[in-house]
Amino acid sequence: MARYQPYSRIAGQSIERLAALSDGVFAVAMTLLVLDLKNPAAETIQGEAALAAALVVLLPRLLIYLLSFLLLGIFWVGQQTQLNHVAKGDRELAWIHLAFLFFVSITPFSTSLMAEFVTFRIALLLYWLNIVCLGATLFLAWCHTETAGLLAPDFDAARGTAIKRRIVVAQAFYATGAALCLIDTRVSLGAILLAQLYFAIGPEWPLNRRDRP
Amino acid sequence: MARYQPYSRIAGQSIERLAALSDGVFAVAMTLLVLDLKNPAAETIQGEAALAAALVVLLPRLLIYLLSFLLLGIFWVGQQTQLNHVAKGDRELAWIHLAFLFFVSITPFSTSLMAEFVTFRIALLLYWLNIVCLGATLFLAWCHTETAGLLAPDFDAARGTAIKRRIVVAQAFYATGAALCLIDTRVSLGAILLAQLYFAIGPEWPLNRRDRP
Amino acid sequence: MARYQPYSRIAGQSIERLAALSDGVFAVAMTLLVLDLKNPAAETIQGEAALAAALVVLLPRLLIYLLSFLLLGIFWVGQQTQLNHVAKGDRELAWIHLAFLFFVSITPFSTSLMAEFVTFRIALLLYWLNIVCLGATLFLAWCHTETAGLLAPDFDAARGTAIKRRIVVAQAFYATGAALCLIDTRVSLGAILLAQLYFAIGPEWPLNRRDRP
Amino acid sequence: MARYQPYSRIAGQSIERLAALSDGVFAVAMTLLVLDLKNPAAETIQGEAALAAALVVLLPRLLIYLLSFLLLGIFWVGQQTQLNHVAKGDRELAWIHLAFLFFVSITPFSTSLMAEFVTFRIALLLYWLNIVCLGATLFLAWCHTETAGLLAPDFDAARGTAIKRRIVVAQAFYATGAALCLIDTRVSLGAILLAQLYFAIGPEWPLNRRDRP
Repeated sequence: MARYQPYSRIAGQSIERLAALSDGVFAVAMTLLVLDLKNPAAETIQGEAALAAALVVLLPRLLIYLLSFLLLGIFWVGQQTQLNHVAKGDRELAWIHLAFLFFVSITPFSTSLMAEFVTFRIALLLYWLNIVCLGATLFLAWCHTETAGLLAPDFDAARGTAIKRRIVVAQAFYATGAALCLIDTRVSLGAILLAQLYFAIGPEWPLNRRDRP
Repeated sequence: MARYQPYSRIAGQSIERLAALSDGVFAVAMTLLVLDLKNPAAETIQGEAALAAALVVLLPRLLIYLLSFLLLGIFWVGQQTQLNHVAKGDRELAWIHLAFLFFVSITPFSTSLMAEFVTFRIALLLYWLNIVCLGATLFLAWCHTETAGLLAPDFDAARGTAIKRRIVVAQAFYATGAALCLIDTRVSLGAILLAQLYFAIGPEWPLNRRDRP
Repeated sequence: MARYQPYSRIAGQSIERLAALSDGVFAVAMTLLVLDLKNPAAETIQGEAALAAALVVLLPRLLIYLLSFLLLGIFWVGQQTQLNHVAKGDRELAWIHLAFLFFVSITPFSTSLMAEFVTFRIALLLYWLNIVCLGATLFLAWCHTETAGLLAPDFDAARGTAIKRRIVVAQAFYATGAALCLIDTRVSLGAILLAQLYFAIGPEWPLNRRDRP
Repeated sequence: MARYQPYSRIAGQSIERLAALSDGVFAVAMTLLVLDLKNPAAETIQGEAALAAALVVLLPRLLIYLLSFLLLGIFWVGQQTQLNHVAKGDRELAWIHLAFLFFVSITPFSTSLMAEFVTFRIALLLYWLNIVCLGATLFLAWCHTETAGLLAPDFDAARGTAIKRRIVVAQAFYATGAALCLIDTRVSLGAILLAQLYFAIGPEWPLNRRDRP
C-alpha cells in the first residue's frame, strides 16, 4: 500500500496559477466597477444641454470609481511585488491570498455603496474597513511568506522590510483619511484619494529621506 | 495524400490553456457572486440608522456569498493540485474539466437562489447538488488522469490516493450537512460552512492520525 | 534617420497573449451565460411546491445555457488545437482571431434571445448564424496559418486536413439541425445538442471507419 | 539592520503579470459590451415579424458594439506590440499601463452612452475623448519605455518610430472623424469605423509608399 501523504502538503503549490487567478479577479473587479456608471434614461433627456447636465451629475460617481480603480491598482502592484519574490507556495499562502481576493471581489460592492450614499459615515467606514482587510491580508501573506521560508534564495531581507513598512504607512494614511469623516465624508474621500495618488505616482524622496542613514 | 489523423488525438492537449481558462472562469464566478449584493435603494434610506439597518439585513446574504467563495476556493485549490501533476492532456480530460467548469459557472446562480430562499429545502438541495457535481467531475478528472497515463513520470502514487480520499471525505461532510436540512436549512448551511472552514484552514492532524501506520 | 519599418510587420506576434485574451473572453462569455438564469421573484413564491414549480419553468433555459456552454467548449478546444501548432503569429492572424472572439463574445446575447423566444424561427436562425460565423472565422484562421507559413516546422500536414475537415463536418451537422426548424425550432435545438454531444464526448470510430484506408 | 530599499524600485517589475492583467481587463471589457444588447421584452412580441422588427431596431446598437470591439482590438494589438519589446518593467510603467487599462475599462460605459444617445454631439465627444485618452496613455507608455531603458537590447530603433507614428496617425484620423460631428454624429461614427477597419485590416502599401525612400 502506498505511503500516506497529507493533502495539505501537495495542495496550492503553484504560484503561477495563484497569480493568474489574482489577475483574473482584479481584472473582473476593475471592470465591474464601471457597471455602476449607468446611462441617464433616454426618455428624460430632451437635448444636448439636458444630457450634459445629467452627465455632470455622474461626475462624483466617476471620481469614486477612479478612487477604487486606484485602490485596486495599488493592491495589485503590492501583491505582484510579493509574488515576484516567492519561490514556491503552500496551502496556507494560497488561502491567505484567496482571503485577499475575497476583499478584492467585494470592492465593487463597497464602492457602489459609497457612491450611492456619499454623505453617510457608515458607507465610508465600510469602505475603509474593506481597505483595512485588503492591507491586513496582504501583510499576513508577507509574514507567512517570510516565516514559512517560501522566498527565493537570493532575496534581500531589506526588501521585506520595505514591503511591510509600505503597507503599514499606507494603512496609517488611510486610517487618518477615514478619521476625517468626523468633519465630512467627502473630506475623507479626498484625503484617501490624495494618499492613493501619492502612493501611485508620488516621488520617492519623502520616504527615502526619513530612512536614509 | 496525407495520412489520416483523427482530430481527437490532437485536440485539447494544452494543460496551460486549460489552467488559464479555469482561472478565468473561477475569477469571473467568484466576482459575479458579489453582484448579488445589491445596494439598498437610496430613496428609502433617511439617515445613518436606516442605512445601518438595511445593511444588517444584507448580512445573511454576505455570509452565503462568503460560503460560496470558500467553496470555489476549495475546488480551485483542488483542481490546481490535480493539474500540477498532469504532464500532458487529452481530449477527454479537457471535456471533463469543461464539465467541471460548467458547474463552477453555475455556482453564482445556485448561490443566489440559496440567498433568496434561505429557508427553502429545495434551494438547499440544489445548492448541495451543485457541490456534488463539482466533486464528482473533479473525482472523474483524477480517475481519467490516472488511467489514461497522463501523470508526470515522477508522480508518487500515494498522492493520488490522498487526492481521491480528500474528495470523498469532503463530499461525505457536505452530504451530512445537507441532510441536516431535515432540521433546518440554516443548520445545514452552518454545518457546510464549518466543514469548508475545516478544509480550508483546518489543522492537518485529524486526518493524519487516522491514516498514519 | 532610422530605417522605416511598417507597423504591421511587428504587430500581433505574440501567440501567448492571443491565447490569454481568448481564454479570458471564453471564460467571461461562459460565465455570463448564467446571468440569464434569474431567480424567481421571492414575493410570488409561497412555499416549497411553488419554488419547485418556478424552477421547473427554468429548465428549458438551463438546457439552452448548457447547449451554449457546450458550443463554446467545442470552439475553445478547436481554437486551442490550432494555436498549439502555431509557431509565430502575425497581424492578420491576430485580427482573424479577434473576429472569432467577437462572435464568442456575442454568444451570450444570441443564447439569451434563443432562450427567450424558443419557438421563434428567427431566433434559431440568428443562433445558427452565430455558429456559422464561429466556424467560418476559425476555418479562415487555419487557412491563413497554413498559407502564411506560421506553423511549427515539425507539423504533420495530415493534422491540418483533420482540423479543416472537422470544422466542415461539424458545420454540415449544424446546418442540418438548423434546417429542421421548418418542422419545429425545438427539434432543431435537440438536433444541434445531439451533434454537439457527439463532437464533445462521441467515440472516434465513425469518422475513422470512413477515412481509414 | 538591513539596508533600506525604496519600495518603488522593487514594485511592478513583472511584465508577464501586467500582460495577464491587461488581457483580463480587455477580455472583460470586450464581453461586457454585449450586455448592452438587450432582448426585446417577450410580452410585446407577438410573432416572427414583430421579433424581426425589434431586432432590426437593435442593429445600430450592434454596429456601435462592433465599433468598440474593433477599438479595443486595435488598442490590444498596440499594447501587446509594445510589451513584446519590453525587457523589464518598473513602477512607472506599471502605473501608466494601469491608467491605460482604466480607459479600457471605461469603454463599455462610453460605448453604451453613444449607443443610447447616437445623435448627441456630447456623447460622441466623450466617446472620442475616451479614444484620445487610450492613445495618449499608450503613447506615454512607449515614451517611458524608451527613456527609462526598459527595451530589449536587440531592439531596432526604427520600430520605436513606427510605433509612435502609428499612434499619432491613428489619432489624427480619429480627431478628423470626431470633427465631422459638426455635420452629423453618424457621419463621425462612420468615419471612425472606416479608419478603424483601415487600421485593422487595411493593406500596408499606402503608408509604405509615403515613407519609402
